Formats: sequence, C-alpha cells, structure tokens
Amino acid sequence: MTDTVTLSIEQAEKLGLAVLEDNGFGNAHASAIVRSVVTAQIDECHSHGLYRLIGCVQTARNGGLDTHVLPEVIDQAPAITRINAHKGCSLLSFETGLPYLVEKARHCGISVLAINNSFHFSALWPEVEQISAQGLVGLAMTPTHAFVAPAGGAKPLLGTNPIAFSWPRPGKKPYTFDFATSVIARGEIELHRRAGKEIPQGWAIDEDGQPTTDATKALEGAMLTFGGHKGSALSTMIGLLAGPLIGDVLGHETHAASEDAPGNPHHGEIIIAFSPETFLGAEAQKHLDHAEELFERIIAQGARLPSQRRFEARERSRQNGVTIPKALHDELVALTKAG
Amino acid sequence: MTDTVTLSIEQAEKLGLAVLEDNGFGNAHASAIVRSVVTAQIDECHSHGLYRLIGCVQTARNGGLDTHVLPEVIDQAPAITRINAHKGCSLLSFETGLPYLVEKARHCGISVLAINNSFHFSALWPEVEQISAQGLVGLAMTPTHAFVAPAGGAKPLLGTNPIAFSWPRPGKKPYTFDFATSVIARGEIELHRRAGKEIPQGWAIDEDGQPTTDATKALEGAMLTFGGHKGSALSTMIGLLAGPLIGDVLGHETHAASEDAPGNPHHGEIIIAFSPETFLGAEAQKHLDHAEELFERIIAQGARLPSQRRFEARERSRQNGVTIPKALHDELVALTKAG
Repeated sequence: MTDTVTLSIEQAEKLGLAVLEDNGFGNAHASAIVRSVVTAQIDECHSHGLYRLIGCVQTARNGGLDTHVLPEVIDQAPAITRINAHKGCSLLSFETGLPYLVEKARHCGISVLAINNSFHFSALWPEVEQISAQGLVGLAMTPTHAFVAPAGGAKPLLGTNPIAFSWPRPGKKPYTFDFATSVIARGEIELHRRAGKEIPQGWAIDEDGQPTTDATKALEGAMLTFGGHKGSALSTMIGLLAGPLIGDVLGHETHAASEDAPGNPHHGEIIIAFSPETFLGAEAQKHLDHAEELFERIIAQGARLPSQRRFEARERSRQNGVTIPKALHDELVALTKAG
Repeated sequence: MTDTVTLSIEQAEKLGLAVLEDNGFGNAHASAIVRSVVTAQIDECHSHGLYRLIGCVQTARNGGLDTHVLPEVIDQAPAITRINAHKGCSLLSFETGLPYLVEKARHCGISVLAINNSFHFSALWPEVEQISAQGLVGLAMTPTHAFVAPAGGAKPLLGTNPIAFSWPRPGKKPYTFDFATSVIARGEIELHRRAGKEIPQGWAIDEDGQPTTDATKALEGAMLTFGGHKGSALSTMIGLLAGPLIGDVLGHETHAASEDAPGNPHHGEIIIAFSPETFLGAEAQKHLDHAEELFERIIAQGARLPSQRRFEARERSRQNGVTIPKALHDELVALTKAG
C-alpha cells in the first residue's frame, strides 16, 4: 500500500484547474495559478505546490479574493508598468504584466512591474525565472503578513519579505535564488510545534520579546530576521520598495482571510528587470560569458549554486511526473465536482 | 597633553585638498574625494574618513589610479547612464553622473548609473543619501577585492560586496543603511590580529577552509558572508549586478596597488534610483507619509533605525568640528608641501 500518488504533469494541471474552476475561479485566474503551483510541484517545492490550491479555495470561500476580476494595466512611465490586481490573485497580474516589463526593460535598460492590491501566495522564483528565460536579469520582492520582529525589537512588524533573483545562463539553468528574510519559513516552526519539538535558538522570540525554543511561544511571539540587523534592514527595504514606493500597504496592515472575516490579505509586489543587451550592446554576450567564471569558481571550490536541488527535481518530474501525498490528492479531488 | 586634534569642517577640507593636490591630484578629483571623506568624518565614520587620504596618495604613487582623468559620460539608454572612470577615483564619476541618474529616474521612474573602471574606496551611504536628499530612493552596490568565501566553499572569491540604501523622509534624516555582505569588515579582523585577540567563531575560515578564531589564519584564509547561504547569494548577486551586468570585472579579478605593482584595483559600481513621484504621481506624498508608520513602529518597540549613531555624530560635528587622532593629523600634514 502506497501513501503517495504520482500524476503526469498534464494530470496535475487538469486536477488543479478542476479544483479552482469547480470552486468558482474564472479560467484566466485558474490557469495562471495552476501554472505556478504545478511549476513549483515539478521542482518538488511542495510548500508552494498543489497543496496551495486548498488555501486558494479557502480564501475565496472566505471572501478574501476576487476569482474573476481582470488585472488593470497602467502604463505609468517609460520604465514603470503598474497593475492593479483589484483583489485578484497576483499570478494573473504577473503574466499580464510580463510582456510590458520585458519590452520596457529592453528599451530603457531597466524596468519595474509593480503589482498592487493582489492576493499573493506563490513562490517568486517561477517569476524571476520567466524573466531570465528571456535573457534578462530578474529581481522580485514582496511583503507578507507581519510575523517578524525588526532587529532589537520585540513585536511582529515585518513580513517574511522574500527576495528572489535570477540571472540568465544561456544553455544552462539560470543562477536563481529565492529566500525569505526571516531566519526560517513560518511553516518550519509550525512543523516543530506539531511534532512537539523545540526550535533552535535564534529563530524566534516569545510574546515578551525573549529568545525562545518553544515552537508554540514562537508562533505567539515573533520570528527573527536572518543575519541580525543586516537582514532586518534588508527586510525593511523590501517592505518599503514593495509597499509605499509602489503605493501599497505595509506588512502589518495585511491579514489573512479567515472563516470569520475576509481579512485584508492584499498587498503589493515589485519586480525589476535589467536588460544586459541594453546596458552593454554588442558586448553583452562577452560579459554574460564572463559571469560564468564566477559560477565555475564557486562550484570548483566545492560550494553549490542555489536552486540545484530544484533543477534536479525538475529533470526527474519531467520524466516521471509529480508525486504528492495520497491525503493531499484525496483532499484536492474532494474539492472538485467529481469528488 | 591631548592625543587628538579637532579641526573645523573648513580646516578639514582644506587639509584634505592640500594632501591630494600636493601629491598630484587634479582639483576636480581632489575636491570630490575630500567631499566624501569629510562627509564620513563628520559622521564619525573614521574608517572612511580623512584616514583614507593616505591610501589614495599611496595608490596614486604606486600607479594604481589616474589622478587627472575626467570621467566619460555615456548616455546608454533612456534609463541607463554609464560612466567610464578611466582608472580615476569613483567619486568624481558619481558626482558627474548624479544629475543624469536623477533626471532619468524622474522621467522613467527608475534609472541606473553604472560606473566602470574606477578606483573605489569610499563608503556608499554618502552617495545614496545624495539621492534621497533629492526625494528619490537610492540603492548602491559595488564589489571589492576577493576576501570572502561563498557559503559551502573554502577559498576567497567574493568581495565584501557592500549594499547601501536610502529612503527619503522629508524633514527628517533618511532611512539609510550601508553594510558589507561579509560578517564583519576586514579591518575588524586586522584590529584583532594587532591586539593579539581571537576572533569570534563564524567570522572566517583558514586556508584549509576550516573554521578559525585565529585572526592571522583568518586573514590568510577567507572571510565568511553574513547570514550563511542567504548572505552568500546576496553577495553573488551584487558581484553580478556591479560586474558583468555593467560590463565590468568580477571581485577576484581586482587587486590592490602595492609598492611592487600598480595592481588592478579598478572595478564597477551600480547605483539605482527610484522616483516615488514618477511611480505614484500626485499620490506620492501620501505614501511617503504612510511609510513613516513603519519607522514609527520600529522605534516604538525599542528597536533603532540604522545610521542613528552617524546622524547624532553629524549634529555634534556641525557644532564642534571633527576630531581625529594626532598621529593621523601629523601623517596628513607630513604629506602636504607644508609638512
């Protein structure tokens, strides 16, 4: 007896679409969400994979997101595209805005896609990798709900504020990273709590601002940023660039939707694209080739480039399909009309 | 008997100019360098203050920098200004490029100033604070010589790769940070070595890639990045954006000038400016005001904003002048024709 289910990529996509469309999502949103979660599932990034569809459906049922509204594109300035998601999921806004981002970056050298008022749950690396796939350099940042205390502080104020970067490597997988500016993902603390295990020192503080290794107290208190005051400064920068700079909210102003209230889960995301060809003209390829020397030297000394585990998983999944827990599969099927 | 000397700001500037001009620097370069080091000295940032003039003179004597060449401005693209420093000091290039950076950011929403082939020794915060003083958001990055190992590696490859950010706060000091992506400044390890003190675990590894608390072995080995693999990824990004993206070298390709050889100290710097007014039009002020809530909430929970110590020093120095060790003052005077 197996407790996992393996699906072909096509089956995973079909299941995902059914889950969303049978729960009232319009096809445009459902397709964009499925592309993101299946991309994550293919890379065995389970925390942003098919499992997230359950949260999407719950948030929609709780009134925390608009399942049909189309993104509104605003041609703000020569290098700036703004998109008002109007409380829809960020992913359709990203797909809608990507051609503008790329075109403006190619013309101006650098450009910004600012997504406002969106429901955001996805990993950022599928987005920056769509930018690097077009030969540009991608950088994305978004705030999240306030779970993290600033360095020297005692109360949650900053989001886990992730930053993702992807650099094009023609003929190779890109140089990509995507990390939260908290020490650890909130889900890791939750897993420790469920398992009755202590968390390491340095992950979190309790409600009184004191260091704690108690996962429950940590969840009631605040998470810490990675790298002390430097990580805290970086997280603050992300909150500003993906917040007030683009006319959107601060992390502490957002709240997840719940059964009791739709919450206010909506916030902003900033995506920056740099065009090496526009920076460098005919010399661009020479310098992109030269960047390979840095990667080669990292590998030569026994260090790994980020995202290698994902890339290896990608190869496996393209061959074998994606494998998810049977319990998750059952839960997803139960959300469809067929279930 | 006192072992310090207090100079008025005007006296400090005059001394700095004499040191450089009496050692062959043209007035344009000398003035730009003096503005930067005196700005740092006023903020009691001694490591980037008047003391740096000695290094400038030594580098020039060793043939590692051009003391007269004027920066060449290249209008690369609507949002990109490139400056070829032609082996001159980066500071005159920055001052020359700043008006283009600001004008293009106001027009396009975001813009980049890419400085190439420059001798770079200065702190970055005086530059990003010149951007925020004009109501824009500034972000600057530069590689340095390879002193730092990538996470999981064993050999120096990355620079200490600083990143600096400044956010305008009308009527108040800006929100500014400027930090190296190494755990600690190289000078700190040097100070421990001189004092015969051990360094803390986590700062560095020895030549064999093993953790060390021996400052001498650390200087022969490699420094570590802050925040483990996250800091390492960030440092790599800085090396790419301020290197190959702008057509410049990687950290490991640079070397300080020495008495034996002029070295190849020249590298790039990337400075990005964001214009809130162009992102947001008439709504910009409302959102800048709103950002204040984040700062207020950081302070309210007992945490400090970065750079506060510098700002307090600035107030003191504006009243009382700048105080430097007498030994440094003697050394600077000795470098002038009067000395």
